[in-house]
Amino acid sequence: MAPAGRKHGSPLKPFKIEPGDKRFARRARDRQANLTKPPGSLGRLEDLAVRLAAIQRKDHPTTRGRAIVIFAGDHGVTEDGVSPYPSEVTGQMLENFVSGGAAINALAGVADADVIVVDVGTLQPGTLADDGAFHARSVRRGTRNMVNEPAMTEAELDEALDVGRSEAKLLENTALVGLGEMGIGNTTAASAMTAALTGLPVARVTGAGTGLDSAGVRHKSEVIERALARALEIDDLSEPLRVLQNVGGLEIAALVGFCLQAAEQRLAIVVDGFITTAAFAVAWRLCPEIIDYAFFAHRSAEPGHAALLEMMDVEPMLDLSLRLGEGTGAALAIPILDAAVAAHNEMATFESAGVSDKTR
Amino acid sequence: MAPAGRKHGSPLKPFKIEPGDKRFARRARDRQANLTKPPGSLGRLEDLAVRLAAIQRKDHPTTRGRAIVIFAGDHGVTEDGVSPYPSEVTGQMLENFVSGGAAINALAGVADADVIVVDVGTLQPGTLADDGAFHARSVRRGTRNMVNEPAMTEAELDEALDVGRSEAKLLENTALVGLGEMGIGNTTAASAMTAALTGLPVARVTGAGTGLDSAGVRHKSEVIERALARALEIDDLSEPLRVLQNVGGLEIAALVGFCLQAAEQRLAIVVDGFITTAAFAVAWRLCPEIIDYAFFAHRSAEPGHAALLEMMDVEPMLDLSLRLGEGTGAALAIPILDAAVAAHNEMATFESAGVSDKTR
Repeated sequence: MAPAGRKHGSPLKPFKIEPGDKRFARRARDRQANLTKPPGSLGRLEDLAVRLAAIQRKDHPTTRGRAIVIFAGDHGVTEDGVSPYPSEVTGQMLENFVSGGAAINALAGVADADVIVVDVGTLQPGTLADDGAFHARSVRRGTRNMVNEPAMTEAELDEALDVGRSEAKLLENTALVGLGEMGIGNTTAASAMTAALTGLPVARVTGAGTGLDSAGVRHKSEVIERALARALEIDDLSEPLRVLQNVGGLEIAALVGFCLQAAEQRLAIVVDGFITTAAFAVAWRLCPEIIDYAFFAHRSAEPGHAALLEMMDVEPMLDLSLRLGEGTGAALAIPILDAAVAAHNEMATFESAGVSDKTR
Repeated sequence: MAPAGRKHGSPLKPFKIEPGDKRFARRARDRQANLTKPPGSLGRLEDLAVRLAAIQRKDHPTTRGRAIVIFAGDHGVTEDGVSPYPSEVTGQMLENFVSGGAAINALAGVADADVIVVDVGTLQPGTLADDGAFHARSVRRGTRNMVNEPAMTEAELDEALDVGRSEAKLLENTALVGLGEMGIGNTTAASAMTAALTGLPVARVTGAGTGLDSAGVRHKSEVIERALARALEIDDLSEPLRVLQNVGGLEIAALVGFCLQAAEQRLAIVVDGFITTAAFAVAWRLCPEIIDYAFFAHRSAEPGHAALLEMMDVEPMLDLSLRLGEGTGAALAIPILDAAVAAHNEMATFESAGVSDKTR
């Protein structure tokens, strides 16, 4: 158990995240060894099933009950020209999510997952009504420009963290939560966070985002350098919450709170791509035990993503050159988890099937 | 169109495999560019949808109607101790497939795919009745020992190829076929085929199979060397069908016939792991156009698999260290194809969703 709140100066309340249960992991490994297949031949699927058993404290883990929760927010730094798309697209895409026309809707349909959209701070939130699928929880209409001042005040950060925390508390009968996000400019925030969290040079963790050319990527790197130089003058960036406050985003802060609470509730967290991994990395720095609850869905085409995965020493499940966000990678990974659990729960043992084991 | 039958001396009837339709591919690419996402951001999913459109000659391709077809056969070479499991396991596993207790049953359930089991030549076929899910098409009770003589006579090879061909013809209302196989000893056959097809040293393309130790793998390599040396004395191994006849297997030959016929019928072929890729590679050498119909599901832990994938210059969809066969990798890949098609068919365009495109 890690009382995260005491590790830093933030008013973030302590989280009690227990590690996965080693006894259930051992029992699950024993079961895998008796299933009608050569030992280890289901590769990483075996490990996924064992980890879910340890999270859920169940001999027969489940993946039923799953939701993709998309946190959305805009970024003041877009006024410095870091994205080829205007900020208004964030709000337009929220409408698209709710009306079912986005990539995540199609992919969540295949994964049989609910899509929940949470507005934590779009500039132009549109006319969406707060209901089951859309939660209006705006903290502020976009972050402040991180080049000139912290992206959020401490109070705004706390409020955004709390939005995420309360969203996790709303989940019932849920085994898996996929992390999603939408926010024009948020690869800039994630790259800045990655540079601060890993200590790597900004240029190495900054990519094309939604489609910058090489001059655009260079400009984006320079903007991030300026933001980090400014932040370092006023704050200690070895504190993950100060990184989040200075160069993060409202939707990213909500994701941090969401991850911490979801792990406390023993949900399996399917981390999507670069942005959600940056959020997860902050939660991991606060509470390393949270790693037991995480399933990294895919390796994004964004270069900063690999740096974060390496920092946490984790290997994602898929590598399909996705760079969309929205939770699309998480949705794609859910059927893999379904398969891992189906094999674990449904397969015959050598004995029950009358199949000769090589050791007999 | 490639009249495969004329390329070699076998009585294999000519196949007419047309390449994927370039006009439908172009239209599908145009559609992808107008969907509400940054261009290219769905990575390889976009290419999968485009390829399915080209195969099916449809603007809205489908993945509905899918089957995993498992071809099973035993291998005479097991008398030389190349597998830790006895040959009787092949027949026992057929019973397990039909009663639903194997890994493929669990994974096909997740993929919503039918499982069809075809006995092309097990040693101990058991008491299974020929019905919808089990097809008794035994050519011979196991191959001959490839170390001493060709694994099959020409007549047996032709019969096994024809089993596969007729199984493909039985498929109705099917868009995707996943290739599966079962046969104790068949990684030995696949490694021998891979060495012959790629020209690589036997030791580089021979692995642990179901679980040999390093001494076992060395012994397996030596057995393969002996079989290939014998075959080279009597046959021209630059002819893929002579490779198949000398060091292949009954289930592998059936897979070759199945692939050729399935492509002629314009079905998308989801190739599983090492064994099915070795079979596919023979079909590809006979009819290179067949590559347009293939989706390589995963990269097996068997070293020979990478060599075959490299020879055909293809990249598999998943890399989860599976080494089970049965079609398990193919079953895992099906939801990825579902997702690719769902995004392609269901997503809104920038115009229909009122989302700003960066170019406007």
